[in-house]
Amino acid sequence: MACEYRHRRRVEFADTDMAGIAHFACFFRYAEEAEHAFLRSLGLSVHAPAEGVTVGFPRAAARCEYLLPARFEDEVEVHIWVHKKRTRSLVYQFEVRLGDDSIAHGELAVTCCRSYRDGTLEAVPLPPPFVDKLEEAPYAALAFR
Amino acid sequence: MACEYRHRRRVEFADTDMAGIAHFACFFRYAEEAEHAFLRSLGLSVHAPAEGVTVGFPRAAARCEYLLPARFEDEVEVHIWVHKKRTRSLVYQFEVRLGDDSIAHGELAVTCCRSYRDGTLEAVPLPPPFVDKLEEAPYAALAFR
Amino acid sequence: MACEYRHRRRVEFADTDMAGIAHFACFFRYAEEAEHAFLRSLGLSVHAPAEGVTVGFPRAAARCEYLLPARFEDEVEVHIWVHKKRTRSLVYQFEVRLGDDSIAHGELAVTCCRSYRDGTLEAVPLPPPFVDKLEEAPYAALAFR
Amino acid sequence: MACEYRHRRRVEFADTDMAGIAHFACFFRYAEEAEHAFLRSLGLSVHAPAEGVTVGFPRAAARCEYLLPARFEDEVEVHIWVHKKRTRSLVYQFEVRLGDDSIAHGELAVTCCRSYRDGTLEAVPLPPPFVDKLEEAPYAALAFR
Repeated sequence: MACEYRHRRRVEFADTDMAGIAHFACFFRYAEEAEHAFLRSLGLSVHAPAEGVTVGFPRAAARCEYLLPARFEDEVEVHIWVHKKRTRSLVYQFEVRLGDDSIAHGELAVTCCRSYRDGTLEAVPLPPPFVDKLEEAPYAALAFR
Repeated sequence: MACEYRHRRRVEFADTDMAGIAHFACFFRYAEEAEHAFLRSLGLSVHAPAEGVTVGFPRAAARCEYLLPARFEDEVEVHIWVHKKRTRSLVYQFEVRLGDDSIAHGELAVTCCRSYRDGTLEAVPLPPPFVDKLEEAPYAALAFR
Repeated sequence: MACEYRHRRRVEFADTDMAGIAHFACFFRYAEEAEHAFLRSLGLSVHAPAEGVTVGFPRAAARCEYLLPARFEDEVEVHIWVHKKRTRSLVYQFEVRLGDDSIAHGELAVTCCRSYRDGTLEAVPLPPPFVDKLEEAPYAALAFR
Repeated sequence: MACEYRHRRRVEFADTDMAGIAHFACFFRYAEEAEHAFLRSLGLSVHAPAEGVTVGFPRAAARCEYLLPARFEDEVEVHIWVHKKRTRSLVYQFEVRLGDDSIAHGELAVTCCRSYRDGTLEAVPLPPPFVDKLEEAPYAALAFR
């Protein structure tokens, strides 16, 4: 059972915008990369077939609060943890750190879905390997403004 | 004075992911594009010098809830409006529609900042043209889950 | 039969980088958007099932030469045309203009492929609607340095 | 003096498109990331002030040929080397490998430019640290189709 992961990531040139800082939407990619690295560290994947059916984890909600900017070549650490584990969904929370500073924090709520060939999605229970390997972290919920 | 704008936008191939739908982080780009199109429609720009100083609007917070997926070649409408207008910040709310369906809604909180050459940012009052041309929309606040 | 298309596109804030100009990789997205808008104008789609089989057009090669930068809020025109039409592939060439200036030009070579469920790709002849509706443009080949 | 670098990089979910493979434009970001990691390994940066003036390296040309697709979670290696070193410009060539396969190769031509506050760019000689630390690699030029 695991509840958290720390993912390191360089701010790349293409991530910056004309304000000279990492574009705000990049933080959602960073958080998702950390989520996937977390799952990968447990032998899980958001898009691997599990027991013969391909399930995925479309996002139900995403949010981020920005405290300090990140700049080109900064190496940030994304700490992500399981905030809620429910039958058909997970809520991750994350904090982005740069050195000693917390520069952003946020949340990703994902729903476990089976995709059908006609493109429709149906919420289904988490596959057993996800149930077996993920547990809620003992951290207090983040306070959003 | 204006309080809202409707921006139409095609879901492009590069916006999709292997799940066959627009990647969730794209919705933040769509919302930002709508914000900028709104300001442009009023002769304003998020990065133009105003009264001799370049101000920008780094994001303080961003959130989105996803109700239905958007797919390649869908033409979505992003309806954005001023939810809160404060001395140094604006809160926009937005809804993304596809035909008759509301497929997502969210919020962007932005702070008016002056950037200094050393890279630091300082919150400053909205420039007069923003104060004069933007007003709060008469809509109830979005209910987030 | 059609051989060319002109697509207009705003440079968005997220397209810019810390150098204050549109990031070079964006031009490939712009060219692809123009390609898809071109096909859409003919009732074609790069990812629609054609005669019961889903074919796609993975890129075999892409190139672009940059003459002048594009900046936030610039409205560029991407002129794209069919340079070569072969049994299993197409070569598009494109020019990006900003007002009276040619700011970039390039080429996309795409191969018509059937995708199998195991993820392999097989080159196949262009579907009949593509054969019937696309023709080579009468323009001289672009000169690349 | 150094002439080459090998950069490892995971294909992220946001890099994929609805065809289930890394979007072709991502390879240009991967190549640029490898370029910057190469420079960083030498204590250089594409955007650092050098001798009191900020110079940058806008791209003059970029090209890539795609041999095999890359998929979500693949760890690719981008091998980049200095193909040409000239007074005011560099040409890098690169190869992307996945395990034993070469999946793509390409070229980035960059011009050393000083940016002025009015947004204009002027080609200038490479700063001395670039001249001192970079040398051409002894590899034959890539053959493009």
